[in-house]
Amino acid sequence: MPSSSPAAAQTVHVTLDDGGGYPIEIGAGLLASIGAHPALTHPALRSAAAMIVTNTTVAPLYAEALAAALRPPYAQVHTVALPDGEAHKDWPTLNLVFDALLGHGCDRKTVLFALGGGVVGDMTGFAAACYMRGVPFVQVPTTLLAQVDSSVGGKTAINHPLGKNMIGAFYQPKLVLCDLATLATLPAREVSAGLAEVIKYGPIADMDFLAWIEAHVGALRAGDHAALAHAVRRSCEIKARVVGQDEKEAGLRAILNFGHTFGHAIEAGLGYGEWLHGEAVGCGMVMAARLSARLGLVDDAFVARLVAIVERAGLPVRAPRIDARDNPGRYLALMRVDKKAEAGEIKFVLIARPGEAVVRGAPDALVREVIDASCA
Amino acid sequence: MPSSSPAAAQTVHVTLDDGGGYPIEIGAGLLASIGAHPALTHPALRSAAAMIVTNTTVAPLYAEALAAALRPPYAQVHTVALPDGEAHKDWPTLNLVFDALLGHGCDRKTVLFALGGGVVGDMTGFAAACYMRGVPFVQVPTTLLAQVDSSVGGKTAINHPLGKNMIGAFYQPKLVLCDLATLATLPAREVSAGLAEVIKYGPIADMDFLAWIEAHVGALRAGDHAALAHAVRRSCEIKARVVGQDEKEAGLRAILNFGHTFGHAIEAGLGYGEWLHGEAVGCGMVMAARLSARLGLVDDAFVARLVAIVERAGLPVRAPRIDARDNPGRYLALMRVDKKAEAGEIKFVLIARPGEAVVRGAPDALVREVIDASCA
Repeated sequence: MPSSSPAAAQTVHVTLDDGGGYPIEIGAGLLASIGAHPALTHPALRSAAAMIVTNTTVAPLYAEALAAALRPPYAQVHTVALPDGEAHKDWPTLNLVFDALLGHGCDRKTVLFALGGGVVGDMTGFAAACYMRGVPFVQVPTTLLAQVDSSVGGKTAINHPLGKNMIGAFYQPKLVLCDLATLATLPAREVSAGLAEVIKYGPIADMDFLAWIEAHVGALRAGDHAALAHAVRRSCEIKARVVGQDEKEAGLRAILNFGHTFGHAIEAGLGYGEWLHGEAVGCGMVMAARLSARLGLVDDAFVARLVAIVERAGLPVRAPRIDARDNPGRYLALMRVDKKAEAGEIKFVLIARPGEAVVRGAPDALVREVIDASCA
Repeated sequence: MPSSSPAAAQTVHVTLDDGGGYPIEIGAGLLASIGAHPALTHPALRSAAAMIVTNTTVAPLYAEALAAALRPPYAQVHTVALPDGEAHKDWPTLNLVFDALLGHGCDRKTVLFALGGGVVGDMTGFAAACYMRGVPFVQVPTTLLAQVDSSVGGKTAINHPLGKNMIGAFYQPKLVLCDLATLATLPAREVSAGLAEVIKYGPIADMDFLAWIEAHVGALRAGDHAALAHAVRRSCEIKARVVGQDEKEAGLRAILNFGHTFGHAIEAGLGYGEWLHGEAVGCGMVMAARLSARLGLVDDAFVARLVAIVERAGLPVRAPRIDARDNPGRYLALMRVDKKAEAGEIKFVLIARPGEAVVRGAPDALVREVIDASCA
């Protein structure tokens, strides 16, 4: 699947509020040389032990290669493979990581490596945040979604039966290594899901990037390393810039949730796992753009352009009816329990003008019209 | 039990690495006016909802008074009472807090109030650190141990079956309110346990304070408000100074664990709950002082002075035999799994000279001599 087009390794530097930061390394075939990365050989990170946290799908593909690449610098490299899927993003599964760490006698200098997609990254990051009140961790995302979305921002979490990502921490990695070669084993449907979060950065921050995506969406879906490298780098750059201005999500950072308010309602309404997160976000962006148009912020041509690229990325643009009697009240009810909601008011991320987002409320009647139009 | 000696409210300001900080208010009868405290009426902390987290022992004594004092400023004040005791400092019990928060639809501005001893404070702080990736919390410690020890430092945690306090976070409260009047309901044995952590600050940091404790130990055990206020204030001041230099426990802060390495071995060896934490620390300080003397750091008169004040505080000075065949190997084995241990080497907090602590290793043979002498 990946083409042979060359792609030199690229680096995005993420700067944090406390003055620190970490590098995101992007390139094909980086996994094999991770052990020599300066971030790991730095005295502050030197440790006898590393723990690879992965899942049962990714483990057979890349866990042994990563373990081999980590000896040296680590005398002991342990691996724990969690059951795969959002359904296991819970406390009992997280506890398997703590069981493994304590079972191996891992101390507070042990470095955790998240090898997998967003769920593995979120859980490993939260385990690292909590184990002995904080151990270092490294992200090795193996899905496009995780490479463009989870690499920046330090959001870690597990789900609670009453809500998604309700229990977590802001906790930053020491290094993110995006090996584009690992995307070769990613199903096409998951590549498309990842593209949703890539497309997102256009309307909220960079219309030139949207034009670039429009010109390269074929290459991206075909696994071209040079195209993927640019998409991952630019996405990480934009996210890093936004997060850098609002590390703890006080305000601005919420624009990164463009498409997510409608998207979360779709995911919750259909039952998690029915649509992939990226698919729900793709459709959610179309809905949020339509709401922006109805509020007079953007024109219909902008909406049509977004619909076209979402569709070309292989993502759904028609919203599912999540209520048996076609009642849009279910969407509204689900959006009201979103973490962004305040005192019951839904906060939508809308497009103020192409390339710029705004967070605001909207009249229920308008939202219902958008839902009706999007389900049609 | 509390005398009628007057004690004006006193404040200790804790400064944090990030430039922020919080006040510790110390005085008798402060609970009733907590709702008017500037820390809670500050716009950044304004919220519709407060959640009091307490336990089934403390709830009947003070939960209703605290709830009443919190309306206003909060429109809704919820309470969750956890089962009492270290045995419940675990995930299933912590999850009761998340269940309550989500069940009441609490958003990320909800303020948590920890009402109880160290276990309630540690669990509430950790729940606050994790709920929606962090909500504000306030400590209202109702034991002497919690007032002098948990008010400063931001350590929060729960236990894992394989280790105490293994899962947690550094997370700071917005306000600590030490109402000395709540100590009136504290059993004498727990007052003594709290005094262990008060005495601790003498040998590691302030021998004048140790002399003051020697002169006032009777008043402290009798619940005199003026004496308690001074003891709590001075303890918090010293701890705040030490923590301020080392918020994340990189080095210096470890001196606050004077008595805790031996103490944790006693607790774990006897089974948690057999001795109170403060009792184990009291005896542990005697053992650590003896080890300091054997290493030539302090003289026998210093050890005798420490033994005398620990005993006068109502604490045990003779170590328990925690192995059936009187084999000191069990102490060493338990101390080797301490969080401070690095690559299996036990780090002891010792007294370099009266009023100054040092963290270092010691030959096993010397440690065995101290254990033998202390069990005799």
